[in-house]
Amino acid sequence: MRLSRDVAVVGGGMTRFHHKIHAERTSRELFVEAALEAKGSVDNGFDLKEVEALFVGNFSSDAFEGQSHTAALMADWLGITPVAASRIEDACASSGVAVNVAAMAIASGAYDVVMVGGVEKMRGLTTEGVTDTLAMAADAIYEVGAGFTFPGLYAALASAHFAEYGSNWEQLAAITIKNHHNGSLNPKAHFQREVMDIALRQGEREQLTFGDELEFLKSSLNPYVAYPLRLFDCCPISDGASVLILAAGERAQEFTDSPVYIRGIGQASDAMALHDRESLTSLRATRLASAQAYKIAGVQANDIAVADVHDCFTIAELLATEDLGFFSKGDGGRAAVEGRTGLDGEVSVNPDGGLKAKGHPVGATGAAMAYEMFKQLRGEAERHQVAGAELGLAHNVGASGATVSVQVYGR
Amino acid sequence: MRLSRDVAVVGGGMTRFHHKIHAERTSRELFVEAALEAKGSVDNGFDLKEVEALFVGNFSSDAFEGQSHTAALMADWLGITPVAASRIEDACASSGVAVNVAAMAIASGAYDVVMVGGVEKMRGLTTEGVTDTLAMAADAIYEVGAGFTFPGLYAALASAHFAEYGSNWEQLAAITIKNHHNGSLNPKAHFQREVMDIALRQGEREQLTFGDELEFLKSSLNPYVAYPLRLFDCCPISDGASVLILAAGERAQEFTDSPVYIRGIGQASDAMALHDRESLTSLRATRLASAQAYKIAGVQANDIAVADVHDCFTIAELLATEDLGFFSKGDGGRAAVEGRTGLDGEVSVNPDGGLKAKGHPVGATGAAMAYEMFKQLRGEAERHQVAGAELGLAHNVGASGATVSVQVYGR
Repeated sequence: MRLSRDVAVVGGGMTRFHHKIHAERTSRELFVEAALEAKGSVDNGFDLKEVEALFVGNFSSDAFEGQSHTAALMADWLGITPVAASRIEDACASSGVAVNVAAMAIASGAYDVVMVGGVEKMRGLTTEGVTDTLAMAADAIYEVGAGFTFPGLYAALASAHFAEYGSNWEQLAAITIKNHHNGSLNPKAHFQREVMDIALRQGEREQLTFGDELEFLKSSLNPYVAYPLRLFDCCPISDGASVLILAAGERAQEFTDSPVYIRGIGQASDAMALHDRESLTSLRATRLASAQAYKIAGVQANDIAVADVHDCFTIAELLATEDLGFFSKGDGGRAAVEGRTGLDGEVSVNPDGGLKAKGHPVGATGAAMAYEMFKQLRGEAERHQVAGAELGLAHNVGASGATVSVQVYGR
Repeated sequence: MRLSRDVAVVGGGMTRFHHKIHAERTSRELFVEAALEAKGSVDNGFDLKEVEALFVGNFSSDAFEGQSHTAALMADWLGITPVAASRIEDACASSGVAVNVAAMAIASGAYDVVMVGGVEKMRGLTTEGVTDTLAMAADAIYEVGAGFTFPGLYAALASAHFAEYGSNWEQLAAITIKNHHNGSLNPKAHFQREVMDIALRQGEREQLTFGDELEFLKSSLNPYVAYPLRLFDCCPISDGASVLILAAGERAQEFTDSPVYIRGIGQASDAMALHDRESLTSLRATRLASAQAYKIAGVQANDIAVADVHDCFTIAELLATEDLGFFSKGDGGRAAVEGRTGLDGEVSVNPDGGLKAKGHPVGATGAAMAYEMFKQLRGEAERHQVAGAELGLAHNVGASGATVSVQVYGR
């Protein structure tokens, strides 16, 4: 696997991910906001007429808004028809895959300038409605029919990992605490408060004081959702959109003096249902997709300085940091406790707060990861900047791991 | 627009499109049947392990089956994980667009062998349920909210064309009669009876005899669905799947002695809602997508010998034959009446029966068009073979024309 042409990111934008501030807005409005920020981010002025094709990752505007044919609608509302407009759906990896497809579209020679993004407007439904809708990304017959929704599926992965490697929930809590810290530094994040800050306020309301964050996370104020996962192990339900502008490498300098390049892409699938997997303690698709991306980029896992990984649940970040090769199998939890994935760690994981704190409007997540790498590698991530980051990675998972996309980004 | 590498079709398969015979089957079972036929069609034996990526066009398994994440599921059930698996949704053009994306994936250098197909299992819902689900492909706020469903949208296009060009319903009836004739020659078609045959049987049941097909089509046995469109102006609701195996041009001979090449691709978008279009009597996206495809292929409209065009309603075929440049604007209806689009006409349009008679499981339609071109150009279309066809075209429309994909095929 290789790409015939270099592909550069020359612009990026995203809405804040949130559950309330977008209450009166539709997905088309969210997408246009992100796209106009992306347009404005291009250094030398940018005319949207340059865009030749649009790829939109979206999980299920069908179920969330009674609206499909999402990509053409976004092109229409952004005023960029007649560009070729295509929607990609690969569950929660929809826009991660869309970035890969967009990169291939440029590498193919078909287009020089492509817009790619993602959008999801979820909060029109109740929490129960969202949970049921998301469950469509699992096997409707063999998993959902048996009562599984995603908290349960990831809880099974956590239990298996605990049993096989002796990892534990306190390690997951370290991921929660780190990602809330990072989110507190990111004005686009859904949650912008440290766990300690939340603990103090909640404690006040409950006439309690807590010695530390872990005490709070262990208390009944952080109830179990699906054992061993508690509320703070789960990402929130968010609305939002994210957009990138890509250009053929040889034309990147027309648009910006500081392009970021997609050095490698990878993607893999796996059995839909957990009962058909070879392992419950490792996502094979993550291993294979990242191996492809590393190979194309000519890098190794330990070359990566900063990574956005798919932490829909804290256990997913633990698994990702192992399966991407950042740490040996079984060491991911310890590495999190030891701060090795913090903003100043050996590999900064989810510096933007991750799905846990930044939020997870599912179709928008993969492109938002790409947006974060674009900002990090240009040194524009402000308070959550990882110092001197040269190589970044975005890792987007569909459902419980039946789809994984990866990109490696570099200057 | 160009493609950096040649792309060949080396295998193809499809289920019969039908409303009853698939009643007990899910989309995953339909897809696997089509994929195994495609595998078997490759001359020199074919190991599915050769497949590196899968693209699946699907409109809304979400709404039809409570199942999204469709591409990974198909990879899983076909036993081809860990291939990269991506779902494309562009309304009724989902798998036409998927063919374009798959061609770009090969041209990009990322993959040499790609499977692309489409699937839709619609008949789990009632006719009313299907109509409402399909309407999600129109503008949910401004069209559906005002009462529009697709028969009404296409009826508006028909009325506008009648008014502007003096075309008429009898011309649409000629398209119905032709496509039923072609369908009667295609064992994969949903309807395999001539209109005359249906008329005689219906007449018998009703104690009536009809002098000719037109009398039948004008009678109350062919009621209005949305004026001026009657029941026989509308395609049926079908279940089905279609699959192609594509390979990099330089490797095609490894797989078959008679590959068919994708000579050109094109795609365009347009305003979602009819009220925002520049014209109601022409689909701009068809004009632009076909112009791109012709340019890449280095051909002109009148070089095309055989074409599958998107006749979800008879008026759509009339519009397509004009907008693709086969006939001058306003001449499409007359051309149909004069037999110029018949199996032995100057351009054979919908030799497989088209959506009207072959059926329209929406996500499967674009890839089924590609399958038909593969068969036609290899001379394997049996009773509906167009003699000596050298260049073919597939034209797939999303919704009322907000998405159009085109491919030009040649030997």
